[in-house]
Amino acid sequence: MVHAARTSGHPADHRYRLRVFYEDTDAGGVVYYANYLKFAERARTELLRDIGILQSAMAAGGGPVFAVRRVEADFIAPARLDDELEVRTWVTHHGGARIEMRQDICRDNEELVRLFVLIACVNDKGRASRIPKPIADKFARAVGGPAG
Amino acid sequence: MVHAARTSGHPADHRYRLRVFYEDTDAGGVVYYANYLKFAERARTELLRDIGILQSAMAAGGGPVFAVRRVEADFIAPARLDDELEVRTWVTHHGGARIEMRQDICRDNEELVRLFVLIACVNDKGRASRIPKPIADKFARAVGGPAG
Amino acid sequence: MVHAARTSGHPADHRYRLRVFYEDTDAGGVVYYANYLKFAERARTELLRDIGILQSAMAAGGGPVFAVRRVEADFIAPARLDDELEVRTWVTHHGGARIEMRQDICRDNEELVRLFVLIACVNDKGRASRIPKPIADKFARAVGGPAG
Amino acid sequence: MVHAARTSGHPADHRYRLRVFYEDTDAGGVVYYANYLKFAERARTELLRDIGILQSAMAAGGGPVFAVRRVEADFIAPARLDDELEVRTWVTHHGGARIEMRQDICRDNEELVRLFVLIACVNDKGRASRIPKPIADKFARAVGGPAG
Repeated sequence: MVHAARTSGHPADHRYRLRVFYEDTDAGGVVYYANYLKFAERARTELLRDIGILQSAMAAGGGPVFAVRRVEADFIAPARLDDELEVRTWVTHHGGARIEMRQDICRDNEELVRLFVLIACVNDKGRASRIPKPIADKFARAVGGPAG
Repeated sequence: MVHAARTSGHPADHRYRLRVFYEDTDAGGVVYYANYLKFAERARTELLRDIGILQSAMAAGGGPVFAVRRVEADFIAPARLDDELEVRTWVTHHGGARIEMRQDICRDNEELVRLFVLIACVNDKGRASRIPKPIADKFARAVGGPAG
Repeated sequence: MVHAARTSGHPADHRYRLRVFYEDTDAGGVVYYANYLKFAERARTELLRDIGILQSAMAAGGGPVFAVRRVEADFIAPARLDDELEVRTWVTHHGGARIEMRQDICRDNEELVRLFVLIACVNDKGRASRIPKPIADKFARAVGGPAG
Repeated sequence: MVHAARTSGHPADHRYRLRVFYEDTDAGGVVYYANYLKFAERARTELLRDIGILQSAMAAGGGPVFAVRRVEADFIAPARLDDELEVRTWVTHHGGARIEMRQDICRDNEELVRLFVLIACVNDKGRASRIPKPIADKFARAVGGPAG
């Protein structure tokens, strides 16, 4: 299923490119492990922006915001200073209360890090909340599957 | 098994306290999700230091160094600015080539984030390498189980 | 004047210790330059906490919060992984609208980074604002000089 | 002189665009002050790359590398989540041992942060070192002024 999405040219098969700077690396000469989660979040933010969802507007509106509930990350090979990386993101599931994504961080066609990310909406008390319908509808239109 | 370790007072049941500063938070008013991985790594570094393993010395000696291979993280509830947190770390498995740890990040006795971390040794080419015997022996003495 | 403060044992002569972890370093093998500003902010936060000023409470109260207006930083020598550092902070001036501090980041007695930091209060529109009198009074009691 | 450079269309008048992500912000709802130094460093790295200087290659070659010696930063107005920023960089001086740059971080045409940055070369002992002639020559060709 993931492979089908990969070859579909669908908006859900999102690609985000970035450069590795000194700030991303550590004294081991490679990208610090937590920083791959920053790269993944940049890509998710751009995926959302591409389908018309602006997280700063969600927050300003006082409604629920997206929060990461779970991450699984396999660190397969390290990235280094000056590398140009691509984060490839697939929405593997979306429902009324959660969105699941797979994200591969690649250099050329080598997969360096593979992530599974579970995202939910939380209200301003930090409690789980349904994804607001306008947001869920944008998701459904962009990636297919049920509307909110 | 984890619970048994938790109550044992064993060195493997390691506790590391830290404060949440502005640098750790994001515009959502909570700790940015990747930063919990920094907290967890500080705790692992102090656990290693407590049993006589200094990562800067490992690197300077030209031998293999520890690298994180896999992380599973459940973000249960958020931490906020000025919170005092405790990272509780248990070595759940250690062998000749890998170490597995569970780490809970808690505020008072509330578990905020739960991590499983798989650590391996890599040489200066980034290839998997056996844990050097002096390091493995220190681990075995500290947390029990087989020596390197 | 700074030297006098240094030797006074006055609360304004504040010392904060920290450890350098992997997250702080870069591929050059040293602490990444921007991260010294994180260390300095941790020390200022602890100085404020020591005299009874909690920034999260300032923000929650809806009143003005502290913001850094200017930094001058001289990077004299680098810190490295596993170093234990001390941030020494002197309040060199405080008035109704601004606080000036000098901060030295040292390893043993070697000065690695020297900072001058100008702090002001800003309201929730980001506009300059007088330091609230209860805060200014705590400062005056702790470090001497005029009350708010 | 800086103004002349600003309007010259000269390679020294370098522009680098970036987006503000959650990772850059803090609980104050604005970009954390140290992170502007990351943005400035990204821009300097791209300026160097544009004139054919790759810092990872400098490091791999065992020769001296660039290090920041001094920063002056005025934080004029805050950037926020989702802002698109532009870092404008001018080389205001370059000699055999140091390079000085002014960097403005702007949103649209509003200057948010102004930096002066002094850069020097350091060898692998951390000692000041002349800028290697091939590097200095690339600088001289790109921004004018004396060769190395």
